Amino acid sequence: MSDKIRVIIYGLGVIGRSAAKLVTERAGMELVGAVDCSPTFVGRDAGEVLELGRQLGFNVTDTLAETLAEAEADAVIHCTGSSFAGVLPQLQEIVAAELCCVTSCEEALFPRYRYPELAEEFNTLCVAHGVGVLGTGVNPGYVMDTLATVATAICQRVDSVKILRVVDAGTRREALQRKVGAGMVKEEFEKLVAAGKMGHAGLLESLAFVVAAMGWAGAKLDEKVEPVLTTRAIRTKYVSLLPGQVAGVRQVARAELAGKEVARLELQMYVGAEQPRDEIEIAGVPPLKVTVAGGTPGDLATPAILVNMVPALLAAGPGLHTMATLPLPRIAR
Amino acid sequence: MSDKIRVIIYGLGVIGRSAAKLVTERAGMELVGAVDCSPTFVGRDAGEVLELGRQLGFNVTDTLAETLAEAEADAVIHCTGSSFAGVLPQLQEIVAAELCCVTSCEEALFPRYRYPELAEEFNTLCVAHGVGVLGTGVNPGYVMDTLATVATAICQRVDSVKILRVVDAGTRREALQRKVGAGMVKEEFEKLVAAGKMGHAGLLESLAFVVAAMGWAGAKLDEKVEPVLTTRAIRTKYVSLLPGQVAGVRQVARAELAGKEVARLELQMYVGAEQPRDEIEIAGVPPLKVTVAGGTPGDLATPAILVNMVPALLAAGPGLHTMATLPLPRIAR
Repeated sequence: MSDKIRVIIYGLGVIGRSAAKLVTERAGMELVGAVDCSPTFVGRDAGEVLELGRQLGFNVTDTLAETLAEAEADAVIHCTGSSFAGVLPQLQEIVAAELCCVTSCEEALFPRYRYPELAEEFNTLCVAHGVGVLGTGVNPGYVMDTLATVATAICQRVDSVKILRVVDAGTRREALQRKVGAGMVKEEFEKLVAAGKMGHAGLLESLAFVVAAMGWAGAKLDEKVEPVLTTRAIRTKYVSLLPGQVAGVRQVARAELAGKEVARLELQMYVGAEQPRDEIEIAGVPPLKVTVAGGTPGDLATPAILVNMVPALLAAGPGLHTMATLPLPRIAR
Repeated sequence: MSDKIRVIIYGLGVIGRSAAKLVTERAGMELVGAVDCSPTFVGRDAGEVLELGRQLGFNVTDTLAETLAEAEADAVIHCTGSSFAGVLPQLQEIVAAELCCVTSCEEALFPRYRYPELAEEFNTLCVAHGVGVLGTGVNPGYVMDTLATVATAICQRVDSVKILRVVDAGTRREALQRKVGAGMVKEEFEKLVAAGKMGHAGLLESLAFVVAAMGWAGAKLDEKVEPVLTTRAIRTKYVSLLPGQVAGVRQVARAELAGKEVARLELQMYVGAEQPRDEIEIAGVPPLKVTVAGGTPGDLATPAILVNMVPALLAAGPGLHTMATLPLPRIAR
């Protein structure tokens, strides 16, 4: 009988493993299960898979049901995919087991945007089982949506919101450098854009979140993804770029209301980006400019916010939540 | 029968008048009453007192009871005093009338710090009458407490929080310039400090809010107030300073845990302050630095947040709330 929040991690990718480790470090939480379908993890002690230097006394299982056969839990931290429709069967299974769930699924930040009916049905399921589900992360989840929304709390009037996030992909892990297209030629990048296979998931969800929070009903949303080409040779630990090659991505999501741009979210992620930062500019009364120097580091911050939102979600009423429906986000114990 | 939130303004000082005007501009709100004991306001149409250029059809009354005899309301925005104990009879009257209340009372930002028993009793009263009460503003209420707390949402670990707010009092209204001591001699300033009559109300409440949000139980809080002396002659619209005279105030509130400083809130408000700004620095994983360029302008922002929090408070459960117990702060309609 413990007062600690009992957490299962579902999905042991980079973010999932990092969140799981963080749970083991928190005084108010206990890691009680780990689910992942990777054959290199299944059947091994979770402490070993997480490289904790100690055993946790339970093995990674292939399915949630196997973990639940051995352990009781309060919440799941879920990190498996970007598509809400894609991960929905997993989320439904979690909710059916009467477990709260914080998910890193990018589209789950604001699932009502892309999937209004699915989201409504899922909300009904959450309520029926008495549990809450929240999609969050750093981007989407914090920098380009939650933080910008909080900034408007001191505004008499908001005319428009502009958010710029600049990430130097050269300082990030190899998977991210590849993901933004570093080292591609322009044509290859544009083919992937045309196929919908390039760009950061969730930027439109951040935009839809902000638009909803501002009450801009009827706003028209769009998005474009472009390559950033390097003008100089750059070599990172993982890629070498010649002038004219793709260094990364510039992605812009915009909302228009009555023909006027009311929100513009611009994400630049490329190798060699200068002055990495997060910038929120609000035109209104008063005008505001909020800056996070150096930019919020996603690799550390995403696992943190997934873990930090668990207690607030457990304390909240059941349903499909957003970062706007829960009490003030903050670090948890 | 209106869907609008019906608001009474209680206290028609600078902030109260500004909040009241803002209510009249909001699509989702309606100003239905105004209470102030000033003989220059009582009995006059509220629209006239607020200089709206139109009548509102109701007069400023001396007491809340008189306004309630004429109008039904949902919420009160209360702007009369800084001391929670001092304004408590007014807050009790509001709650007894089953009205929600957002108050600018600085100590009400976190009344459990200075008045644990009074706050508990008052919470019980709020619950009994089914209404919520919230103390907020910009400082205290946002810059040095709420915003800093939100910044920790993406932290794996927080070792310490440092907040600096620099306000150039020379650009602010006369009352503020006088309040910070601009134009005094050092001895006069220090006499007032010794008498507890100098310094910004609510800085310790901001600190107590942050300490509670971080879960730093047992932290030791203290505060000091010092004059900032000018080294050059300065003349504002309202005061003229000679070198060596007081330009304003430097106020520092600190929290120690196990002999280590875990939080430091420093407020500089003086005539001639350079680089006015709000800065939040978090030492931890990841370290963070969030800056509001130019600093959040209190004269515009305080009325805004008082008005913006009304819908969230009405939608929340009853009780004595804080900025940490309500859903994500944002601009309201």
